[in-house]
Amino acid sequence: DEDSVINDISQRRYNPLTDSWVLVSPHRAKRPWQGQQEVPDKSTRPPYDAKCYLCPRNTRAEGAKNDDYKSTYVFMNDFAALKEEQPAYTPPTNRSPQESHLFQLEPVTGKCYVICFSPRHDLTLAQMPPKDIEPVIRTWQTIYKEAVSLANIAHCQIFENKGAMMGCSNPHPHGQVWMSSLVPEEPAKERAALYKYYNEHGTHMLEDYAAIESKKKQRVVFENDAFIAVVPFWAVWPYEVLVLPRRRVARISDLTPDEVSAFAQIISQVTVRYDNLFSCSFPYSMGIHQACTDASMDDNCDHLHMHFYPPLLRSATVRKFLVGFELMAMPQRDITAEIAAGTLRTLSAVHYLDE
Amino acid sequence: DEDSVINDISQRRYNPLTDSWVLVSPHRAKRPWQGQQEVPDKSTRPPYDAKCYLCPRNTRAEGAKNDDYKSTYVFMNDFAALKEEQPAYTPPTNRSPQESHLFQLEPVTGKCYVICFSPRHDLTLAQMPPKDIEPVIRTWQTIYKEAVSLANIAHCQIFENKGAMMGCSNPHPHGQVWMSSLVPEEPAKERAALYKYYNEHGTHMLEDYAAIESKKKQRVVFENDAFIAVVPFWAVWPYEVLVLPRRRVARISDLTPDEVSAFAQIISQVTVRYDNLFSCSFPYSMGIHQACTDASMDDNCDHLHMHFYPPLLRSATVRKFLVGFELMAMPQRDITAEIAAGTLRTLSAVHYLDE
Ligand SMILES: O=P(O)(O)O[C@H]1O[C@H](CO)[C@@H](O)[C@H](O)[C@H]1O
Ligand SMILES: O=P(O)(O)O[C@H]1O[C@H](CO)[C@@H](O)[C@H](O)[C@H]1O
Repeated sequence: DEDSVINDISQRRYNPLTDSWVLVSPHRAKRPWQGQQEVPDKSTRPPYDAKCYLCPRNTRAEGAKNDDYKSTYVFMNDFAALKEEQPAYTPPTNRSPQESHLFQLEPVTGKCYVICFSPRHDLTLAQMPPKDIEPVIRTWQTIYKEAVSLANIAHCQIFENKGAMMGCSNPHPHGQVWMSSLVPEEPAKERAALYKYYNEHGTHMLEDYAAIESKKKQRVVFENDAFIAVVPFWAVWPYEVLVLPRRRVARISDLTPDEVSAFAQIISQVTVRYDNLFSCSFPYSMGIHQACTDASMDDNCDHLHMHFYPPLLRSATVRKFLVGFELMAMPQRDITAEIAAGTLRTLSAVHYLDE
Repeated sequence: DEDSVINDISQRRYNPLTDSWVLVSPHRAKRPWQGQQEVPDKSTRPPYDAKCYLCPRNTRAEGAKNDDYKSTYVFMNDFAALKEEQPAYTPPTNRSPQESHLFQLEPVTGKCYVICFSPRHDLTLAQMPPKDIEPVIRTWQTIYKEAVSLANIAHCQIFENKGAMMGCSNPHPHGQVWMSSLVPEEPAKERAALYKYYNEHGTHMLEDYAAIESKKKQRVVFENDAFIAVVPFWAVWPYEVLVLPRRRVARISDLTPDEVSAFAQIISQVTVRYDNLFSCSFPYSMGIHQACTDASMDDNCDHLHMHFYPPLLRSATVRKFLVGFELMAMPQRDITAEIAAGTLRTLSAVHYLDE
């Protein structure tokens, strides 16, 4: 049948959200791995670590002291990539058209926050009950609303790097927000695709996509009344997951309290299954895409969603490298989205450490 | 002056080759690193390893036996992502326009080679004299010409993943070639930009760029009569390098014998400096972009060049992670291209192990 051929041939699949393609070569999954072995995070951490710069009451690298916080805790990033104020920049003058095109530089301002998800040093989103994830979502709502209120902020990027493998330098559960005076390219590409789709089809891309996947089932990881989590048809990362509300909610602050609970539940369901997949604290980068915060941009086609990009491929120690061919030509994956989704879907919804 | 402001403000820079932007936040370089420590490759390897599947005379994972080769050695990848023949795929019918747009899948065929750069297990390009790099370039020329001769091959991607950190599973010096029936997106984007630039300016982008950088000098790493190596103004990876011939050569097979020698010299100069930077075998992904091999595509604006994308940032153990913000929003770097180039330029041209 169709599915067996799909698992047997090299193919490219189209990502309608970013208007790009991924190469899928399922038979590559059979090749033996003799390369780098990762160090899985199976550590048991104490609930409080006196040397952690994110734990309550501790002093951070630059000297500020954390509050004795009990739920989520937000502070300005001490090493912010983007700042509200900076020296003025005068662009060079008298350049040829060629030079002007080849050497383009523009100042960027912004604001960067760190959000501790919990005072507990030993937890992660996967180990927090959904009711404790709700305050995290409400904090994202508050910060998003602040971004909207700021005149020079066009975009608000909420994300989490989890695990040393994904560049996280502290295991205390936390995420970040980078607000910027410009709209970065990845959300700009998605926005353009959402608007183009609507103009061509008269329906909304991610509403259509959620409805079709919910009916097809083979790429669904988990769904509830308000949200659906799938391994997207066009996934690049081995166990990539896309979480989205079934109805077109433009921004996180538009979620109703019931939808906040449903969002917390599905984040929990996805992250628990991730940890259960290889019995380790599963590394990933996670990010939320939604309407821009530039008041001059309408929100007629925006649809809030969350991407999980996890690097592990075969076990807690074997990852997928997106390197030479991927960087120079196009992304390539070894297992199909359907196989990855089936694996995640059938995993236990109870965290392996709680069993 | 202008340069000191540039080293002090957050800025975005435009990549005219791919029509994209990178965020540069130079003050981020000051932040302490408490995250993952990499394991530097300082191993001394034997010239021949009986367990290596790339050494002369050894048997590979799938049972084939390597020749007793003395220079470069080419064989078909035993776990090729792309194959010349595969089962036929019949696309689904009777789908709605929405479904047709959201679930696009196309078969891809191709041919994948592994190229051993040397019979010596203990060498890398950085440790091979330029005259031994020349046969590698000539092998790339031969393979490129084969790709041109094959009716179903539209693109020929030459690349090398060096080091465990970049997904390389065997330290024996080797690269790969993935030929494909389609033109991948990264070269397609570059091609479009090269053509657009020519139509707008009446001059060739990379000829202009090489000439301007050669005059400005601050981003030059090394140059000879035929080639120039720069940290491009729009570099993403900390010590990214772009190597290109000054004259517009469309494809590797168009290089004259003198240009092959100059190319070998500059590859040697770049890779030696890389190893000298942190006194380790410097990891990177390298790839060559040039004219496509699809006979129906003209070559009026193509300009052969080579990208080096190395992950290390501060030392042999501290790398730059392109993760959360980079994946969800846009690439971000911590040191300016000018500082990176200045560092590489002033390093010794003699390999640290030979001193
Ligand atoms: O073909 P190799 O060297 O086994 O594999 C390496 O390079 C490939 C092409 O960039 C990547 O897809 C793999 O993830 C990487 O491990
Ligand atoms: O801000 P952090 O957690 O120190 O840093 C991490 O996330 C950033 C945003 O994705 C990246 O630029 C860094 O390379 C990574 O190490």
